[in-house]
This record gives sequence, C-alpha cells and structure tokens, in this order.
Amino acid sequence: MIRIGVVGFGYWGPNLVRNFAEAKGARVVRVCDARAERLAIAAKRYPGIEVGQDPMELIHASDVDAVVIATPVSSHFPLALEALRSGKHVLVEKPLASTSEQALRLIDEAERRKLTLLVDHTFVYTGAVRQIRERVDSGSLGDIYYYDSVRVNLGLFQHDMNVLWDLAVHDLSIMDYVLRSRPCAVSATGISHIPGEPENVAYLTLFFETPLIAHVHVNWLAPVKVRRTLIGGASKMIVYDDLEPSEKVKIYDKGITVTNRPEDVYAMLISYRTGDMHAPQLQTVEALETEANHFLGCIEGREVPISGGEAGLQVVSLLEAASSSLKQRGRPVEIKPVMVMA
Amino acid sequence: MIRIGVVGFGYWGPNLVRNFAEAKGARVVRVCDARAERLAIAAKRYPGIEVGQDPMELIHASDVDAVVIATPVSSHFPLALEALRSGKHVLVEKPLASTSEQALRLIDEAERRKLTLLVDHTFVYTGAVRQIRERVDSGSLGDIYYYDSVRVNLGLFQHDMNVLWDLAVHDLSIMDYVLRSRPCAVSATGISHIPGEPENVAYLTLFFETPLIAHVHVNWLAPVKVRRTLIGGASKMIVYDDLEPSEKVKIYDKGITVTNRPEDVYAMLISYRTGDMHAPQLQTVEALETEANHFLGCIEGREVPISGGEAGLQVVSLLEAASSSLKQRGRPVEIKPVMVMA
Amino acid sequence: MIRIGVVGFGYWGPNLVRNFAEAKGARVVRVCDARAERLAIAAKRYPGIEVGQDPMELIHASDVDAVVIATPVSSHFPLALEALRSGKHVLVEKPLASTSEQALRLIDEAERRKLTLLVDHTFVYTGAVRQIRERVDSGSLGDIYYYDSVRVNLGLFQHDMNVLWDLAVHDLSIMDYVLRSRPCAVSATGISHIPGEPENVAYLTLFFETPLIAHVHVNWLAPVKVRRTLIGGASKMIVYDDLEPSEKVKIYDKGITVTNRPEDVYAMLISYRTGDMHAPQLQTVEALETEANHFLGCIEGREVPISGGEAGLQVVSLLEAASSSLKQRGRPVEIKPVMVMA
Amino acid sequence: MIRIGVVGFGYWGPNLVRNFAEAKGARVVRVCDARAERLAIAAKRYPGIEVGQDPMELIHASDVDAVVIATPVSSHFPLALEALRSGKHVLVEKPLASTSEQALRLIDEAERRKLTLLVDHTFVYTGAVRQIRERVDSGSLGDIYYYDSVRVNLGLFQHDMNVLWDLAVHDLSIMDYVLRSRPCAVSATGISHIPGEPENVAYLTLFFETPLIAHVHVNWLAPVKVRRTLIGGASKMIVYDDLEPSEKVKIYDKGITVTNRPEDVYAMLISYRTGDMHAPQLQTVEALETEANHFLGCIEGREVPISGGEAGLQVVSLLEAASSSLKQRGRPVEIKPVMVMA
Repeated sequence: MIRIGVVGFGYWGPNLVRNFAEAKGARVVRVCDARAERLAIAAKRYPGIEVGQDPMELIHASDVDAVVIATPVSSHFPLALEALRSGKHVLVEKPLASTSEQALRLIDEAERRKLTLLVDHTFVYTGAVRQIRERVDSGSLGDIYYYDSVRVNLGLFQHDMNVLWDLAVHDLSIMDYVLRSRPCAVSATGISHIPGEPENVAYLTLFFETPLIAHVHVNWLAPVKVRRTLIGGASKMIVYDDLEPSEKVKIYDKGITVTNRPEDVYAMLISYRTGDMHAPQLQTVEALETEANHFLGCIEGREVPISGGEAGLQVVSLLEAASSSLKQRGRPVEIKPVMVMA
Repeated sequence: MIRIGVVGFGYWGPNLVRNFAEAKGARVVRVCDARAERLAIAAKRYPGIEVGQDPMELIHASDVDAVVIATPVSSHFPLALEALRSGKHVLVEKPLASTSEQALRLIDEAERRKLTLLVDHTFVYTGAVRQIRERVDSGSLGDIYYYDSVRVNLGLFQHDMNVLWDLAVHDLSIMDYVLRSRPCAVSATGISHIPGEPENVAYLTLFFETPLIAHVHVNWLAPVKVRRTLIGGASKMIVYDDLEPSEKVKIYDKGITVTNRPEDVYAMLISYRTGDMHAPQLQTVEALETEANHFLGCIEGREVPISGGEAGLQVVSLLEAASSSLKQRGRPVEIKPVMVMA
Repeated sequence: MIRIGVVGFGYWGPNLVRNFAEAKGARVVRVCDARAERLAIAAKRYPGIEVGQDPMELIHASDVDAVVIATPVSSHFPLALEALRSGKHVLVEKPLASTSEQALRLIDEAERRKLTLLVDHTFVYTGAVRQIRERVDSGSLGDIYYYDSVRVNLGLFQHDMNVLWDLAVHDLSIMDYVLRSRPCAVSATGISHIPGEPENVAYLTLFFETPLIAHVHVNWLAPVKVRRTLIGGASKMIVYDDLEPSEKVKIYDKGITVTNRPEDVYAMLISYRTGDMHAPQLQTVEALETEANHFLGCIEGREVPISGGEAGLQVVSLLEAASSSLKQRGRPVEIKPVMVMA
Repeated sequence: MIRIGVVGFGYWGPNLVRNFAEAKGARVVRVCDARAERLAIAAKRYPGIEVGQDPMELIHASDVDAVVIATPVSSHFPLALEALRSGKHVLVEKPLASTSEQALRLIDEAERRKLTLLVDHTFVYTGAVRQIRERVDSGSLGDIYYYDSVRVNLGLFQHDMNVLWDLAVHDLSIMDYVLRSRPCAVSATGISHIPGEPENVAYLTLFFETPLIAHVHVNWLAPVKVRRTLIGGASKMIVYDDLEPSEKVKIYDKGITVTNRPEDVYAMLISYRTGDMHAPQLQTVEALETEANHFLGCIEGREVPISGGEAGLQVVSLLEAASSSLKQRGRPVEIKPVMVMA
C-alpha cells in the first residue's frame, strides 16, 4: 500500500485526491493547502484523511511514501526538490518547473536517489492521444507534415506565467509523445491586454529538421472553448477534437499525390485524394486514473515513466525558448538539444 | 447599359459572368479564355455572348466599357494596365497585383484617367462582414483586442504563389475593412511540403501600434474545411463562421473586467463576465451580386469604391511583407505606411 | 439538521447521496442497497454513513427524517408508502409509481400525514427548463403551437417497463411544468425488438383542447445520443438542446404571419418572418443541488413542492394512457382529468 | 437528340431545365409557365428556348419528345395524362398524382403506349441514398429494426396539400427504395395552425409485417432546418444527415447483443456493443443530373425506371392512408397491397 500525500487542494488537487483514493494499492493519507476553506472541504469529503496547512510537514511525514504536487508553478521546484530529498516519490502538476535548469536539478536528484519523478502531462494518458500515437507509429498516416492545435477559452488568467505556460504546455507534451521528434527552432508571437500582466494570447510555431511544422494557438480571452488539433500526414490526416463527446479522433483518408509533370520536370503535378473518414473507438478510462496507476506502477518498478523528468524538461525548455521569441515579436529562437546528465 | 467583357472563364469567372448577366444596367458582351473547352461551356450557356481566346482583342474591343479580370495573379497587372490604358473600367480578381509597385501603377493609371478600379475583395460585400463592421464601428465590442482567423481546406495548390496570396488575402481584406487600422509589423511562418513549390501552410501574425493582435492560419492541405474568425473586444466578442448555414455571426456578451487589486496596486484583479449570445439576422444577397452592382454604381459615379485600388494595394503590401518574414522563419518585418500618389 | 436515508445506490443513488451530503441543513445518515458491492463503494466513499441491505430497517430507523428512494420503479410504491406511514418525508425517483392508482394512494397518504412527497423530475430544476418556462409564461413566444422532443441513445434497456416510462417521463414532466396545459388524448406507437421484452422504440403524440400538439420520440437503440426539443410559438420559437455545452436554449425570432387574402376571404396569405437568434445565459447550478435544497425547503415548510405528488400522478396517468395506445398501434386514447382527493 | 419540354418554371423547374440543358443527348426546346415574369427569366437565361403560357401547346408540339412536369400537384394528373396520350415520355415532379386511382391510370396509359413514365423522387438519385441502399442490401446492417426521419424547416406552406404530401413524400420514396419492404399499416397525427388550411405539422408511423417500424416527422413551422434519418440495424446503425457538407452518411458499429439469461430462460440478457464509426466517401454528382440522364436512358431503352410509375403509386397510396389516419388522431389504417394491372 503506497501512502500518498497531496499538496494543493485547489482546482486540480481534488481530482488527484479522488483518483488516488480509488486506486488499488494506494491510500491518500494527507492533504495540505494553505487555505483553511479548502481544507474544510477536503475534510468533509474525506473524513479519514489528515489535513494541514504546512507543506513541509506533509513532505517530511514518515507515513507518506509519495508526494503529489498540485500548487502554483513557482512552487513546483522547491516542493518537489524537498520531497525528493526526503526520499519521497514525486508526481508534479505540469509544467515540471519554471526553468529548464530547475527541471534538470529535479531529474538529477530523482536519478541519484532512484526515486520516481513523474510530471502530470494528463493528455498522454487519454485514449484519444494514445490512439493518435499508435496511428503515427504504425506509419499509416505517412510522413507527418504538420501539427496544428487550437486551445482557447475564457479564463483563467494567471499572474505568474503567460498563456503558453498554462495552455500550450498541453500541446507540447502531446506533441512530444506523439511525434517523437524534437523541434530545432521556435517563433512565438502574442500580446497582453492587461498592463503589467503576462501575455494572454499567444501563437507558437515550431520548426523541425524535417519538413514538419507545428503550430499552437492559445488564448485565455476567447468567447468559445476550442480544443482542436489537425495532424496532416502524407497518407492520412487526423482531426482530434477533445470536446466531441464520442468521436474525438477522426481519421481522414485524404491527401495529395505529387508526381513530376510530364511536360516540365521541374514542376509538380498535384492531385487530390479524398476517401472515407473513420472514427476509431477510444478507450474511455479517465486519464487521471490511468496516470495514478502508472505512477504507482513506476514506484513499484513495474513500469517506466511515460511522462518522466525528461519529458517535463523537454516541455519546459520549449516554453523558455518560446517566451524568449515572444518578447521579440516572433524572431526565431534556436532550441539546443537538451542534455540530461546520465 | 454598361457593356462588360470578362477575361478568364475558369473557376471564378463563371460566377462573375452570371452576376453581371443578371445585373440591371449591364450586359456581358464578351468572354475570353485561352482554353477552347472553357469557351465551349460559356458559349453553350450564354448563346448571345461573343467568345474568344485573345484577351487583347477583348480589352481593345470598342463594344466593351468595362473589363473584369479573373485570370492567374501574374497576369493581373499587364491585363489591368492595358485595359485602363484603353479607357476601360476594371474589376480585378484578388489580389490586385503581384507586387505593391504594380498596384501603385494601376492606381495611378486609373486616377489619371478617371476610371474605376475595383478589386474583387468578395467578402467585404457579404452580409456577415458588413454586420461585423457595423458592430465594430458602433463601439459595442469595445476596444478590439484580437482578430484571429482560420481558413483551411484541401486544395487547390497554386504554383505561382504561396498560400498566403491565395487564402490570407481574404482575411487581410476583411480585416482592413472591419478594423480600419493598419499593421506596423508582421511575422509569418510556414512550410512547403512539395519540393520547389510555394508554401502550402502558413501562419501570419500582424502587430499594430495599439494593443491589438491579428493572426491568420491558412492551409491547402487540411482534411476539413474551416472558415472561422474570432474577434475579441473589451466588451463583447464575435465568432464568425462562414460555413454556418444561417447563424454565421454570433456575438457573445463575454469578457473580463480588470480592476486594481485593493491589496496590491501593481497587480490586477480579473473577473469574468459571461452573458447572452446573440446571432443577428444577416442580409442574404449573394456577395457578388452586391459587388457587381457596386462596380456599376462606381462607374456611373453614384458610389465610391469600397475595395478600390488603395485597399488592393494595402493587402498586396502586407502579403509582400509576410512573404519576406516567411522566408526568415518568422523574423518580424516592419510595414511602412503605404504612399498613394495623390 | 434533516437526516436523510437513501434507498438504492445504483446508477442515480450516488448522485442523490452526493448532493444531500453537500447540502446545507441536511446529513445523509444511512444508505441501503441489496447489493453488497454497491454498499462497499458507498462505505469507502462516505466512511461516516451507516450502510445496510434492508430497506425496511432504513425506513423505520428513528435517526432518519426523510427517505430518498432510488430503486426500480416497481418498488417505488411499497417503499414510499411504508416510509410515509413511518412518518418520513419522501423523495422518489421518477416515475412516482407504476400506476395512477398507486400514485393517488401516495398523495393521499402524504396529505393526511402532512408529509412532503416529492418526485425527482430532475429537469424542472435545470436552468434551461426554468428559462423556457419563463419565456412561455411571459407570453413572448405567443400561443404555443407545438412541443416536439427527441430523447434517444444506446441503452439501458429496462425489463420491467417500456421506453416511455424510462425516457418520455422526462419530457412529460418538463411539458407539464412548461406548458401548464394538460392533454386530452394521446396516440402512441412503438415496437420491441427483443421478443418478450417491453417496447424499446416509441413515438407519442399528445392532443390538447387548444391548437397545440406535442410529440415525443424515445429510443434505447439509437447510434447517437440526442436530447433536442423544438417549441413553436406564434411569435417565437425555441430549440432546447440539452447536450450543447453552453447555449442549451436558443430563441428564434421566426414564424409566420397569417392574413386573409384580399382576393379570397376563405384563403389565407402566409408570410414568413425571420429575425435574430438569441441564447440567454442560463443558471448553471446542478439540478440535483437545487432539487435537494427544494426538498429540504418543503420539509421545513418554506417552499411548496414544484414536482409534488400531483405532478407525479399527472405523468403516470399519461404514461398509462400512452402504453394503452401503444398496444393498439396508435389508436387514440382519451385522458380523463386526474382527480386528486382533497 | 431527345427534345424536352418543361411545364412549370417556378421553384424546381429551373433546376430541371438547367440539368436537361447540360445533359448529353438532350435539348430543352420549350418551357411553359402561366406567369409572364417567370417566362421572362427563362427567356433571358436561355435565349434559344421557345417559351409560352399554354401547357397544351407545349404538350402537343411536334418538336417535343418528352415532357417534364413541374407544376402544383393537382395538375400532375391531367398534364401527364395528356402528354402520354400525345405519345410523349413523361417525367413528373413528386408526388406522381393526387390519388392512387390517378396514379394507376397514368401507369396504365404509359404501359399501353410503351412510354417512359418517371417520377422525380430526387433523393433516390443521390450518392447518400444509394450508399445506404448498398449497405442495407449487402446485409452489413443486419435486420433493419427502425427507420426514423426528421424533415422540418420554416416554410413553404402549401394550400392544396398537407405537409405529408410535400415533405414526407421524400422519406416514403427513400424508404421504398432502401428498405424494399412495404408497410401494412400506418398511424398519423398532426395539426393545422391556420384555420381552414391543411396540416402543417405531422407525424407518421409505418408498421410492417416484420419487426420493423418507420417514423417520419415533418413540419413547415420549425425554427431550424433538419434533414436527419436514423436507421437501426441488428448489426450496425446509420445516421444520414443531408445537411452535412461532406460526411452525410455515418455508419456506427453499435448495437445490442441479446442472449437468454442463464438463470431465467424467459428473460433476455442484453449487452451493448460500441465500436468504430465510419463515413464512406459518397458520389457527388448532382442528383438531378443523374436523374436526367436516367430518364434519357429509359426513353432510349438502355435503362429501367428506378422511380417509375409503380414507385410513384406506392408513395401516393401511403400518403392517402396517412392522411386518412391523420383525420382520426392516429387511428391505424391498413394498407392494402397495391395492384398494378399488368
């Protein structure tokens, strides 16, 4: 029985508590939040769990084996580091840390202590994203030409990070999982509509060594909620709409066929293929349930982290580069290969 | 009775012929296309119209008062220039020309000869775009924060211009008409998936002197057709979906209210407003019918061009700057104010 | 503090327990279910609640003030009757009972003992249905011409009642609440696709004394889930789509205007009006939360039942008549006015 | 070259003229309409066609080989009969006639004279309906359990027939084509909201000898346009939405599996299957183009009528029975097998 302590019972924390509470082989023993009213809710809902306001007390408690961190981003690094130093396994809300340097230090700490460090890249545990990865891996889409995602809605404005760190983080983690290739440069643009606050609208283009382009549009000030990704392959194309109740992933047998023109060897003849559409049935287990069980499996040595420290670092380093480009109106910024000390 | 000659009877030409054929006060007298099979179709459908393969013959014909040009972009300039020099009024398919220098010369020629030069920026003649302009002008949206458009579909790949010149041209002309403010810089990214061919996917960010940002996503290789624009204002926001059969324009009474936080004068308190949605009834006249009548009204001096040479030039100069940024992976390119010689 | 006992912890029971557990002024003290595995889940989720398998023990328990019944329909009557006889207030899952005679006896029992009897007509506690009722009451729709509802999905086939009793019950309760007029006759058709089992597809037409018609389509064997109601009024019309995430209620300023034809006094001239569409913001409190609080308010004498015994009886008597017509391939069956013994 | 005369140039006539004008092997030589303003439009659009106001002149003209009738229903019979008697082939707008007796006489006349009699059941010439028929025929849907169609919109109210004759006629012709089995009884309900005018809302249930049920909902007074058909089979189910721009036909691998319960041989164990969805690519030729060519093919003896007199009669006899049930609030009316004199 792995004993779990959860730091942060705000928006996402309750979902983590619920899933670990119902997971086999785990028990939530402590919940911590600085706000008394959040603790009151936790205590009413889970009479058997010990609640408190001091995260250090939870982290150092001897009845806690693993710490789940669902707090604001700026606190991820100090809390996770302290938890690892106390010998606890750690699951951190996305993004892993505020800087790639911090991320590297967490990875290093976890490796040296042989502890599990997992980042809550929730979407890689959904049936939809796993289905997409399978299709990409099987080669049935052909070479991937582009990845385009729109993730917009009204709220919640964050004060300590721009909209890329809040929303694009999802797309970057999905892309890293699905495409398995890493960008070489990034161009980002965006704007803040509130003086002194971080950018609330942003656009991000990722360049790769191959003829692949990726783009992400994120916005906290949109009148409608959109969660839609287009993935174009040489053979087939995907529309992934996370708000669709049942057919979230649609695979289109569409595309172009390019041949040399008989009369002009330097020009191309492009013909269009349009065929059937197919929406495969998806696994419907809640992503957090899969993730909670995976975290337990990693701790017990049965599984290898899918969204471990390195995946977290990759995302953080892209966000850093993007934020730098954002300040320069889209000037492209190169991405250096991430070095994880082995 | 204004006598119309139409050059080009390919994809768009037939629509122009049909609308001028049914317009009051006009008659289509000649149609010209280099392809015999297109002429055969025109001749069968309109037995009374004279058809031919030589555009110069049409342009110089004494029974033609106005020339409508619906040919590939590279021929817009020479054909329009020749028509103006022959004393004919001219309506040109978008974009007006291949370079802003060409556009300037056409404007100059038309002005000196007191001839009407109109660009076929079709969308500014739709009920939807006119409704949006009214809403923006009335101030009911508040300050405009962003303009975001997606215009993607499968095909038709062009060989002589990138996807910006084919699709973003629509958005730039709508934006120019609706926002009435001109960008100061542009960052564009994109890619070609066919060696030697122009970019078939592109993203365009426009920067303004005010806290307004605009973005356009265009793609010839998308599995689904999307024509969706989000316009965010300080007070209200619009979703304009051109593929909706009836409610193309939806106005959301949503947004944020920003106040200084009592406890921290440097930070902002953001609250969310969410209210009713409203889809105003739109005028349903076909855009080309409105445009054809407008062209006739301009020729007769009753109306002033809505999408005249200067609007065409503005769009072309943005496309030039965008294409330049596109070659540099998004490096921002400044837009110099367009100088029209008066 | 009102002490609640919940009988039945299957599909709907957990929602009732959760809402009463979080309601102010109430406490769930007992949960009962015949299935041990359901009790185990209840006990794990709510360590403080006493669980048991015998409904009679719960009903007679002196620490229970009100009994909530979420069991199969056939048991509604005996359980509710026993609870009322034990002096407990009762909230029963829809439909109230299996026959109108049973419903009458429950109403009688509750009235004589001055106890609250409420039926869980969930939808009348939603923001959407309340908004619709306000619009109808205000007269802004004009005379109501028709009410048409589609409520179809795949599953769950019931063995002890046909699809009308499972799904149309929702529409009948909404209609009763919104239209405030009662049908005088009913014609129903349907079919069972499984020998020996109740009808799984059914269509129901309700006739009224006025020129109003209502129709309900219910189906357990549909490939897609649909929850859509059209309400046509002389002045405006409503589309209520319960699966829309935000704009569930759309009000169309559309209709016809009828005048006598000048040339023929016996014939009508019909012209069409088409105007704006408007989607009012809806209250977003969970319906069961509103309903739970309303039940408590009724018990405390602060509120008068919205979906009390008589509303439950009305729905049951319509279902009886409809089931009778269903057996006769749509032969119309008259509805006698329901007599509640005062 | 088959010479076509078209009677009626109102709403649908122009589409017929256009398609026959562009069809190979045919030429439209005459158009007739009682209204001068309609003739003016025809004459302007087709300078080579002779126009006139007298249908008898057209019908008897020696330069006409086949007559296409696109007039109000009440005139179908006299015009078609006269045309057949003049030795012309006939294509009639749906429905074929106002009564089944009239339909029988037209069939008889055409047979005796060896002339082609075709009814314009447009939808059976669409790629969507043909795809559905193929799926049903191939057996891949399994036994068909139900056919449910909604066909509603605002307008156009007819004065000489109820909404069933205007809209349900489409569904009945599609059903006849797709299901290949004929109803044995019908129950219909409906209402008129304009005193003295025919019913503008109607519901129709069709019973069959097999465990198949069909239902049609038609309405001239709906705020939104809906064209949606659900077809449930034992193995697969179809959603056919004619307003979808591309994926009109979706095939769901969903359903139920019924087995005897081990513990109770009289009760059934129902389990649900849910699998992939598949939208096959559809042929996109305009239905009227296919139909026009088919009419020519029948005249030339190359093809056998798909929607000939008997199909027209079948639809008319169902509409008669339905209208009879409609007057009796849904009382079921038996359908006698249609007797075509051979």
